[in-house]
Amino acid sequence: MDQQKIDILICTKVWQPEPWVEGLSKSPLINKVHVWPTEEDLSSVKALFVWKPMDEGVVERLPNLQWVSSLGAGVDHLVNDSQIPEDIPITRIVDPFLTRDMTNYCIMGVMMYQRSMDQHKMNQSNAHWDRIGYKNLKVGVLGLGELGGHCAATLAGLGFEVSGFSRTPKTIENVDCYAGDQLAEFLSPLDVLINLLPVTPQTESILDTKLFDQMKRGAYLINVARGNHLVEADLIDSLDSGHLSGALLDVFREEPLPSEHPFWNQPKIKVTPHVASVTSPDSALKLLLKNTEKLIEGEELLNLVNRDAGY
Amino acid sequence: MDQQKIDILICTKVWQPEPWVEGLSKSPLINKVHVWPTEEDLSSVKALFVWKPMDEGVVERLPNLQWVSSLGAGVDHLVNDSQIPEDIPITRIVDPFLTRDMTNYCIMGVMMYQRSMDQHKMNQSNAHWDRIGYKNLKVGVLGLGELGGHCAATLAGLGFEVSGFSRTPKTIENVDCYAGDQLAEFLSPLDVLINLLPVTPQTESILDTKLFDQMKRGAYLINVARGNHLVEADLIDSLDSGHLSGALLDVFREEPLPSEHPFWNQPKIKVTPHVASVTSPDSALKLLLKNTEKLIEGEELLNLVNRDAGY
Repeated sequence: MDQQKIDILICTKVWQPEPWVEGLSKSPLINKVHVWPTEEDLSSVKALFVWKPMDEGVVERLPNLQWVSSLGAGVDHLVNDSQIPEDIPITRIVDPFLTRDMTNYCIMGVMMYQRSMDQHKMNQSNAHWDRIGYKNLKVGVLGLGELGGHCAATLAGLGFEVSGFSRTPKTIENVDCYAGDQLAEFLSPLDVLINLLPVTPQTESILDTKLFDQMKRGAYLINVARGNHLVEADLIDSLDSGHLSGALLDVFREEPLPSEHPFWNQPKIKVTPHVASVTSPDSALKLLLKNTEKLIEGEELLNLVNRDAGY
Repeated sequence: MDQQKIDILICTKVWQPEPWVEGLSKSPLINKVHVWPTEEDLSSVKALFVWKPMDEGVVERLPNLQWVSSLGAGVDHLVNDSQIPEDIPITRIVDPFLTRDMTNYCIMGVMMYQRSMDQHKMNQSNAHWDRIGYKNLKVGVLGLGELGGHCAATLAGLGFEVSGFSRTPKTIENVDCYAGDQLAEFLSPLDVLINLLPVTPQTESILDTKLFDQMKRGAYLINVARGNHLVEADLIDSLDSGHLSGALLDVFREEPLPSEHPFWNQPKIKVTPHVASVTSPDSALKLLLKNTEKLIEGEELLNLVNRDAGY
């Protein structure tokens, strides 16, 4: 058994590597966990676990690399990384808790907007009792994959009027599903738009003036997918003109969001620091070790990424 | 038919009567809608629709009163009102949208606490990127009636660890149900306690130091039931000592909450102005007219209140 144990390299940028190292080191499947950056000889490393962005020059240090895994659900940082040879399989974390947390964050965002929680907070600071009304909202989910489909179905279960849009047609109970060339039809009646698309060349910068203008005046945007779905200047214009009424943003083109970025001070924008859904090392570790076992046994890896589709 | 039409008196204090008057006046079942206060002769009034509190001297003006209905789910303002003779039936609004809205408000409160949304708001004002972690929470629902049962089941469906406590034993899927003398056992593991009890002599002032001390340090309170469930000074003590970490309060002993009340300025308390669930005149009107028809036909009214139980 011992000669089958493998070496792993962990390469994280915004996350701390310690919980991953600690968890992986305990496994009988793993010989040694290396942490980037390192001067150690990495020629025995067979598996590379990455959270973005990955430095230049990592993969060239790994002559015996057999597998790359993202440490989160997102893989755009890997499929677009030319360091990784075409024939090396890429996998991602498909964690039911990640899906649940993402859905719950979106629900919270919709409800805080519906219930004017920011206005209530301001009223509290003025000791001002104002029973602001609320109405049931039409919520649209852009992207009906693993995350978007779950989010749409759950919002519908809570009594919201929910629709969804995806590239290929889908069917979800109690959700009005649009596809293909029906984007304008999908967008026009929405009170809230939630973006849960994957990043691909087709979806990058999709949240722009052209899209916002297809929504009705006063609509609200929630972006929890990726920062480069959004054209940031277009959002600011649309908020300044009053066409969109506000936005909840959890992801940004540059993270951490630079301290001089205008989003921080835009009163109509609510910023959270990429926390909608955070991989818990505990549950992700189980999935990584399951794939480590598959690699050792020479079986097909779980949750393989289709590099052409980009997700 | 015409002689069967009845006169109604609407008596609201914090709500505007207009939408009710407008909706009821259109019904062929109703002859005239009177609005309190009024100098008109009210001797023909058979039905009294009330939102609290009701002035003294209303019922003595109604010698032919046959029925009193609350305009909301709460009826404590009526069962404790000695103006209303024992033999006059009292009904309440059981509105599925009220239940949905109450549950959704509670979900929002739990999630805003879980995700540190107040801290994120403060961090945004300082352009400070801090990826605060979150954990799954143990949420307890006090009271498992119409509202509490729905809230507990829905929270469980969203992935929270949910328990509930009720006077009489209940069974709810995926919810740990406690009853009778198990209150301490129910309270001790909770991260969040949601109060959805009815107000009765047994539950009034139940949210006091004795109860808080049975919860673990750092727990969070959500009160959406009635203001007089809560001993306000005890809550402030418990927050000051750090035993409870915070509270979301939607209901108060005096409403509107007086401008000098300490809750407005307590940074650990989030105040909303009794908006968790607001009867929509549209859906409540349907229920009131259904009961008006039953009264005219001499049938038993729907959603009768048991005045001994208090709900």
